[in-house]
Amino acid sequence: MTYMPSTPTLCRDGDTALILDQTQLPYRTEVRRLRTLDDVATAIRTMQVRGAPLIGATAAYGVAIALLDDASNARLAHALETLAATRPTAVNLHWALARMRAKLQPLAVAQRRAAAWLEADAIRAEDCATCTAIGQRGLALLHDIAARRPGPVRIMTHCNAGALATLGSGTALAPVYAAHISGIDVHVWVSETRPRNQGLLTAWELREAGVPHSLIADNAAGILMARGDVDIVITGADRVAANGDSANKVGTYLKALAARDNGLPFYIAVPLTTVDFDCPDGTRIPIEDRGADEVCSITGLSAHDQTMSLRLALAGTSAPNPAFDITPARLITGIITEQGIVTPARLRELQRETTT
Amino acid sequence: MTYMPSTPTLCRDGDTALILDQTQLPYRTEVRRLRTLDDVATAIRTMQVRGAPLIGATAAYGVAIALLDDASNARLAHALETLAATRPTAVNLHWALARMRAKLQPLAVAQRRAAAWLEADAIRAEDCATCTAIGQRGLALLHDIAARRPGPVRIMTHCNAGALATLGSGTALAPVYAAHISGIDVHVWVSETRPRNQGLLTAWELREAGVPHSLIADNAAGILMARGDVDIVITGADRVAANGDSANKVGTYLKALAARDNGLPFYIAVPLTTVDFDCPDGTRIPIEDRGADEVCSITGLSAHDQTMSLRLALAGTSAPNPAFDITPARLITGIITEQGIVTPARLRELQRETTT
Repeated sequence: MTYMPSTPTLCRDGDTALILDQTQLPYRTEVRRLRTLDDVATAIRTMQVRGAPLIGATAAYGVAIALLDDASNARLAHALETLAATRPTAVNLHWALARMRAKLQPLAVAQRRAAAWLEADAIRAEDCATCTAIGQRGLALLHDIAARRPGPVRIMTHCNAGALATLGSGTALAPVYAAHISGIDVHVWVSETRPRNQGLLTAWELREAGVPHSLIADNAAGILMARGDVDIVITGADRVAANGDSANKVGTYLKALAARDNGLPFYIAVPLTTVDFDCPDGTRIPIEDRGADEVCSITGLSAHDQTMSLRLALAGTSAPNPAFDITPARLITGIITEQGIVTPARLRELQRETTT
Repeated sequence: MTYMPSTPTLCRDGDTALILDQTQLPYRTEVRRLRTLDDVATAIRTMQVRGAPLIGATAAYGVAIALLDDASNARLAHALETLAATRPTAVNLHWALARMRAKLQPLAVAQRRAAAWLEADAIRAEDCATCTAIGQRGLALLHDIAARRPGPVRIMTHCNAGALATLGSGTALAPVYAAHISGIDVHVWVSETRPRNQGLLTAWELREAGVPHSLIADNAAGILMARGDVDIVITGADRVAANGDSANKVGTYLKALAARDNGLPFYIAVPLTTVDFDCPDGTRIPIEDRGADEVCSITGLSAHDQTMSLRLALAGTSAPNPAFDITPARLITGIITEQGIVTPARLRELQRETTT
């Protein structure tokens, strides 16, 4: 049994793609139609779609949409370049674009249009299956914790690495859904994830699925672990280097430090497409810096008014906004992939399995 | 030279006290008049005044106000009890109330009214002098960093432990102001401090004082340290146990972990009144749990609307809200007090100096 959310994050509709606009959640469920390359690039850049696997699949549909009127080499190159520039950190984006290029470039121009849609559909279907496999691998961990003592298994996560970040049941949340469906009691600590509040997305999708959970300020992660209220931490990642160093939403590193300090297991759950075997370690992963307005959108006024008002009140205050941080491999207990759970040191063995 | 902010956090005006309402900052500078015991208790509970030293002094004025019409033993006991119940974690509150009791209880009822105002004034003046002394002690640390290499000394802090938390130039920020005034280049990393955003108070007062600073999401603390953008972390505390374990605004522990992981010094700056020598370690410090609405006040709508809307959108989502966490003494490089800087292990030596 696999959990599938009722509202898909991305699907094809004729010559367009439909996305759930995640900037409107949890307040409104709004589906947006992407008709042009520009629509797709904007959707990724402004985080209407987000989450490494979903970004990759959306970009693949973006290529198909870009080739509708013109499938020439020049147009293909332009589409790949435009989409690659949308967000720098997630490697799935580059993986998906490389796969589209490898499929389409050798073909005659006349064949490219249909092939692009087929390949994008394949990426979407494969991601869904990958989520299910990650869920089953991670389920074993949660099952072991449940067997050790009574009460719910208490999982802490960060950002959103759930169904909303993928085409299936998620990465970090896939084991949670698998456990919930198989009758294991779970409780999820959902970290707000400032400045973009993706924790609200996680709370929203857990509520839709009926999974017990609590929303907390990011700052509360440490004391909850120190109090003994957490059994395991599982997050996703946007890029895992070959040595296991993992780039994920800013704040993940702090949770990994707190897990280590409290003797708790810390896992990263990712499809193998998120592992960048060409990247030796975390120092080589580019970290996206996003705008100051995300930090300045805080509270107390309407979204626009508060940003303006706060900027006036704090004129002279800058607000740097690194969107990711690097969790060093030494803090990671294991990496949950569709092929199994490995320690960071054994990550390269999966590569061999994949390529042979 | 000592920095003094232009708008005082608390002052006496006849038979009332005037406070700067910090829930309105940084948007509005609003002074509120406290006329009754209830006004004072509400101001502390709702965080119109906050910061351990300021809470203590405000409570002292609260006792003076409570005795205006009736200075009987019963009234005094009622005032002390009401004020003690406002917030559980900060020890200065209990220290100030114990001092008021010790001063007033032995006096004849007729003498208590004037004595209460005098004692509250004394607490206020002493806190101001203490801030100056903490600033001078901490200045030596910043001076050493500045002497080692060119460029500004980059201090990270958490919450607000500045002028707004005290009756003078602050605790954690006192060394920053002392350095700024003495011509040392500084840059302060101001952590937003969800869920109450006290980082905005810090940004506001640093801007008023012309001290260079940047506002960051709490989640960004780790990557900034890992990138080498931070020289030293200094925070305040609400209660320091005898072994040096320190309760401070939730999230402080995560910053201490990140400082340790990156080989950076982590200091707590407090008046000795914040040290609870009767409390052996952090496990004995009560941690205040505040309401879920603070976590649910996030973004995108007006303060009231967003709380309601988010609660509806996330009905079924609970939001526990521990307001403090404990930073273990093992993560603390030193404690900056008005009497000098000591390691946690040597904290008890200051007690001897104080009491002999």
